[in-house]
Amino acid sequence: MPRAWNFSAGPATLPEPVLRKAQSEMLEWRDAGASIVEISHRGPEFMEVAAAAEGALRTLLSIPDDYAVLFTQGGATTQQALIPLNFAAPGQPADYVLTGHWGKTALKQAKPYVATHVSATSEADNFRSIPARDTWQFAADSAYVHITANETIHGVEFRDIPDTGEIPLVADFSSSIASEPVDISKFGIIYAGAQKNLGPVGISVTIVRRDLLERDGQPRADIFDYRSQLKAESMLNTPPTWNWYMLGLNVQWMLDEGGVEAFAQRNARKAQLLYAAIDGSNGFYRNEVEASVRSRMNVPFFLRDEALEKAFLAESKDAGLLALKGHRAVGGMRASIYNAMPEAGVQALADFMRDFAGRHG
Amino acid sequence: MPRAWNFSAGPATLPEPVLRKAQSEMLEWRDAGASIVEISHRGPEFMEVAAAAEGALRTLLSIPDDYAVLFTQGGATTQQALIPLNFAAPGQPADYVLTGHWGKTALKQAKPYVATHVSATSEADNFRSIPARDTWQFAADSAYVHITANETIHGVEFRDIPDTGEIPLVADFSSSIASEPVDISKFGIIYAGAQKNLGPVGISVTIVRRDLLERDGQPRADIFDYRSQLKAESMLNTPPTWNWYMLGLNVQWMLDEGGVEAFAQRNARKAQLLYAAIDGSNGFYRNEVEASVRSRMNVPFFLRDEALEKAFLAESKDAGLLALKGHRAVGGMRASIYNAMPEAGVQALADFMRDFAGRHG
Repeated sequence: MPRAWNFSAGPATLPEPVLRKAQSEMLEWRDAGASIVEISHRGPEFMEVAAAAEGALRTLLSIPDDYAVLFTQGGATTQQALIPLNFAAPGQPADYVLTGHWGKTALKQAKPYVATHVSATSEADNFRSIPARDTWQFAADSAYVHITANETIHGVEFRDIPDTGEIPLVADFSSSIASEPVDISKFGIIYAGAQKNLGPVGISVTIVRRDLLERDGQPRADIFDYRSQLKAESMLNTPPTWNWYMLGLNVQWMLDEGGVEAFAQRNARKAQLLYAAIDGSNGFYRNEVEASVRSRMNVPFFLRDEALEKAFLAESKDAGLLALKGHRAVGGMRASIYNAMPEAGVQALADFMRDFAGRHG
Repeated sequence: MPRAWNFSAGPATLPEPVLRKAQSEMLEWRDAGASIVEISHRGPEFMEVAAAAEGALRTLLSIPDDYAVLFTQGGATTQQALIPLNFAAPGQPADYVLTGHWGKTALKQAKPYVATHVSATSEADNFRSIPARDTWQFAADSAYVHITANETIHGVEFRDIPDTGEIPLVADFSSSIASEPVDISKFGIIYAGAQKNLGPVGISVTIVRRDLLERDGQPRADIFDYRSQLKAESMLNTPPTWNWYMLGLNVQWMLDEGGVEAFAQRNARKAQLLYAAIDGSNGFYRNEVEASVRSRMNVPFFLRDEALEKAFLAESKDAGLLALKGHRAVGGMRASIYNAMPEAGVQALADFMRDFAGRHG
């Protein structure tokens, strides 16, 4: 089949111009005499690719100079283990706000290293909301407060940056980074796996306020040490070069398309289109998330008649709409509509949903 | 420039048919309607790719059933931190045999977690040899003995598997895995970053005797736990899918080319060709490694007249021979001649070396 509209939650659809560029350079990168994936990470060619990617990312996200950028392996989950190791003393308290599956994963990774403290959780209502900031309770001497900016499975997204005062705010931005302007100076640490909005899986980005790197943390291998990684320019060992190169192509594509301001507008229109199709279906479809914190990136929805799920998935696939099955943790359907998903794709999905509801309603 | 003979130590040259296949599938993988890098790791398409890669690797390396295979991120250096965490009690002794730079790296990563004990080291002779097995001293209650099967920088390779009795032998095979038949049952753990003989950087392979997974190890995040990774089929979080796919294509290519027996013969001829060019140069070139442990994968060499190094690098590049500069830790030159380097490439290098010596000798 030809390329379809791909609503996968991550790994996710990539911009076609980026794939075509990577395809054209697969055997020879510029005049290197080899593919970018075959050459030394320490040679001038790849060093240029790496530096250009960081420069473009700094421009795209308006990263202040007093923030370091690390490119790492192991995905966001590895960062969730490394953050307590680097920024908390052994057994020091650290606060976690739980608004979905991934917040719980972050909590789990930290447990061996810190006295985790749940400041607030919306688990009692199945993660359909975000607890009001004034209900959050912080532990004394807390190392940081961790939030998940956007919950990919539950479709819940912070629409305001919570004020945590003197306690550094740490945020998992895996599924919403670069989707709209964000004031990075409000955060201590932002981290994100690349495979939703930044490129291919296999590389992650961690943005750290430099003064936090002065914390001693706790005993750890050098490869787990952010200071060592920063000193080595994220090349303490061989980095995932192709993934880094692809991230750079993606970020440049986002700049060429108008940057985060342009994507914020597109993404708002896309989300509006899809939630309107759901809310206007007279209950044929439903999304249960509190309206004020509905995700602009991941839209989970359920069919009133569960028996129609199989038909919905089969017919949508036939219509060229891929990967709409919801995560097994919640069931139902889910459409992920990251930056690389064009408005035309979301329109096609909304049209299909209306048509399907008309035929089966 | 067109594709040249690329002697990079890693990331390293890949087989051209593999690159062409990846290029042809970059926008659409079979009938998936998307690239392999854009689809869910838990969908049937990628699950098939992942399983096929493991199956092919098991066939290629004759991995016994009582060994598990893990596909992980973070490179060999991360494995060097995870091995003590998973297989040694806190502060338990573990033995390290040092035969070059990478053995020292392994030792460094382990230090925060175990009582590291250097059983033997050839550092006093600048890592030009391997200490005789009967000189090795093991700590009492040692968790394992770690060796580096092939030292990529120093060009020193174990040509026999040392017998460590009841203490499990752990080996970093990053730069020589799949280069010849190896009896895996002699090892407790074999690990390797992919970027020399197995594919692109960004994915590693760890082969573990299953009974060792019953060890408690020490407190660690779930993402650092081999048992959890095995239970999740190396998908505790999103794996680097493109890198895994490329590894599978590379392994299948090695099987199609005749497997490790065929590569052992080719690699012996390639190494012979290059060492003969060095040894037959009347001292114009020299390799200082003890002949019995010279690496078949990485051939470091020096020019008698260091002032000619710049000319050697410039002229070799003009002749289509790339990345011959030695590692900064030892200087001089180095040619890495992994499985994907054809005999014709090594012949071209040997011819160039004779010609260069003739003109400058």
